[in-house]
Amino acid sequence: MTGEELKKLAKVFVRVGGAVQPGDVVVIACDTQDAPFARIVSEVAYDAGAKNVVYKWDDEECSRMRFLRAKDEVFDESNDWLAEYFKYYDDQDAVYLNIISNDPDFLAGVDPDRIGRGTVSRGKTLVKHRENTMSNKVRWSIVGLPSPRWAAKVFPTLPLNEAVERLGEAILKVSRAQVADPIRAWEEHNNNFKQRVEYLTKKNFKSLKFKNKLGTDLEVRLLPGHQWVGGRESSSGGRGFNPNIPTEEIFTAPYKFGVNGRVVASLPLSLYGNLIEGFEFTFENGKVVDFKAEKNEENLKKLIETDEGSKYLGEVALVPIDSPISREGVLFYETLFDENAACHLALGKGYAINLKDSDGMTKEEIAAVGLNDSLVHIDFMFGTEDMSIIGIEYDGTESDVFVNGLFVF
Amino acid sequence: MTGEELKKLAKVFVRVGGAVQPGDVVVIACDTQDAPFARIVSEVAYDAGAKNVVYKWDDEECSRMRFLRAKDEVFDESNDWLAEYFKYYDDQDAVYLNIISNDPDFLAGVDPDRIGRGTVSRGKTLVKHRENTMSNKVRWSIVGLPSPRWAAKVFPTLPLNEAVERLGEAILKVSRAQVADPIRAWEEHNNNFKQRVEYLTKKNFKSLKFKNKLGTDLEVRLLPGHQWVGGRESSSGGRGFNPNIPTEEIFTAPYKFGVNGRVVASLPLSLYGNLIEGFEFTFENGKVVDFKAEKNEENLKKLIETDEGSKYLGEVALVPIDSPISREGVLFYETLFDENAACHLALGKGYAINLKDSDGMTKEEIAAVGLNDSLVHIDFMFGTEDMSIIGIEYDGTESDVFVNGLFVF
Repeated sequence: MTGEELKKLAKVFVRVGGAVQPGDVVVIACDTQDAPFARIVSEVAYDAGAKNVVYKWDDEECSRMRFLRAKDEVFDESNDWLAEYFKYYDDQDAVYLNIISNDPDFLAGVDPDRIGRGTVSRGKTLVKHRENTMSNKVRWSIVGLPSPRWAAKVFPTLPLNEAVERLGEAILKVSRAQVADPIRAWEEHNNNFKQRVEYLTKKNFKSLKFKNKLGTDLEVRLLPGHQWVGGRESSSGGRGFNPNIPTEEIFTAPYKFGVNGRVVASLPLSLYGNLIEGFEFTFENGKVVDFKAEKNEENLKKLIETDEGSKYLGEVALVPIDSPISREGVLFYETLFDENAACHLALGKGYAINLKDSDGMTKEEIAAVGLNDSLVHIDFMFGTEDMSIIGIEYDGTESDVFVNGLFVF
Repeated sequence: MTGEELKKLAKVFVRVGGAVQPGDVVVIACDTQDAPFARIVSEVAYDAGAKNVVYKWDDEECSRMRFLRAKDEVFDESNDWLAEYFKYYDDQDAVYLNIISNDPDFLAGVDPDRIGRGTVSRGKTLVKHRENTMSNKVRWSIVGLPSPRWAAKVFPTLPLNEAVERLGEAILKVSRAQVADPIRAWEEHNNNFKQRVEYLTKKNFKSLKFKNKLGTDLEVRLLPGHQWVGGRESSSGGRGFNPNIPTEEIFTAPYKFGVNGRVVASLPLSLYGNLIEGFEFTFENGKVVDFKAEKNEENLKKLIETDEGSKYLGEVALVPIDSPISREGVLFYETLFDENAACHLALGKGYAINLKDSDGMTKEEIAAVGLNDSLVHIDFMFGTEDMSIIGIEYDGTESDVFVNGLFVF
């Protein structure tokens, strides 16, 4: 990407994604390899009036080395200072800007048990912060940035520099940062979600039935009092922001104990640095009772075993098969992008924002309605070109929501 | 530096510097530009049996941007999570490995008041950790790594890649990492300090008188019960380690209220990213009563104004003018190196290790003896080829310590 393109992507990230306002504290999380882009993002954040920009650096090679070489007990340790870190910035209503550039299987070959235990202890450390982000108490956004190893995975037949360039182009395009006025393009895009979100929320379906030739035959009961969300979201402070750059999904929360049937994944999943391929789940009364994967089944098993909530769904999201990202025809091996190419579900914690009037409710009250809770939230894609979705209302009326992978309205 | 050279430097850093042992937690602090070397250091640490390696990343360009663009109140803020961070690792007796590669004036042009206030708030945040490092409760070490901006400052007339190479060579050489067996070379080097350290400690001088043609004429009373330290130091856990790679100095603590006269700096000082040049101090009863600098006097002023202790000395160090680093003839613009080319003093906090039997003493008891305390500790060089040092014993006996910049024994 050229300097100008990076600047445009940074503007979308800061102004649309995090909606940074004068006086905001901004926390940029990224890999050391993303430092040049982090600096551009910082400039744009200060231009927007940020009070302070701080950093949470990571290094994927060092992380990999740690998973391979650190002593075993390390992966069960809680991390008090990190909890303190997020408390410190959450208390200041910081805006979290996360830059994603990981190699989709950077933890390939690492003992899945270490990754699983690491996920649990990290989840416990971050439990309060996750609540704050998933209820939009604080603003947050994620953007993708091409890196050599990621690009090599996406375009394995291209020379490396060309692969990086192609990935950069694809990211720019689907992030709507390639147009002359990206801020306006996002304004329009955000407005386009409204109609469908309002229609679906008003319909108040009791459940959705998903079916396709790949083998998915699933009924998902929706949370009583659910609402659909898509595009721009609103923080507790009433500030509109876009948690995902890009985004094409409309999503809501399932009723925790109301999922039955079989779902077959339609895209691979990069799960904590390992690609899970050819996988499926069977649900009974909301719970995963069976699953298998052709590749890295052990990693999937560890995810499901994280806690009780990781065996239940926390999100159901609708994405038409003609979404701009789907039409781009690129398999990104990264959920931030791939989830916008196909209908998906998420195992684990649900978003409180998908429950109407959840703002004044306690965590326990929300759970009592049937919103799933967990240390994890992992999306996986199951949408296909022939996906049909039927909505069933509380009076038993059935109507088409998707026919052949597309919204009927 | 070649991969092999970097590995040798990393070995000196990990095995000699931090003396990493099986089961140790290692904290590597460095700039994002040092990531490739940090990974090598990590490998070597895991080879040495480290339990876990974690990172405290910084980015000098982002730091500079923050100092220039963040809101003014930011520089007075304490940083609770960072105090928690160091507590977390201090409690585990972590080994701190700090990689230095900064541009010596990376904060040029920044308002000295911001730097000064930032120093105070950072010092308050780190007060406990500084105590732990300066009393050798935890092991720590610092090493230098060439970076383009630093190298350009040191070798301004060379093409950039050549400058980086030259700086790399110089660092390797003075760090004794260029020889066939660096570990053994350091073993010998550490042993060579012993004789002088023991001689000086036994002499138990009441004070030292420094004089040279540059204008220095200073009497430094030494702390009652002081001991000299040089080369390998011992951690509370009884583990020998080398806090500085390289090191050529023998140092002890002045009596806080016993410094009188004038001292003229013989080398520039890179102080928090600004070069202070052509500077001098006048002391009365230990306190700086006058000072001036030809360049960046305002930055020097802010340092002195940090707190009460920053107006007093905390260290006096002897380095002969024929030290290998002095003979190398390179001005590094970095104290880690330059302090080993010339006798130096430090404004600010003194080392408890320079007081015999300080191990069981409280902070207050140590202060009562006359060891200086401060949020800062800043070395500056004043040694020259014609430096003479006379030692005065408690019975008034005078004897030469340095003649023409060299030890007489």
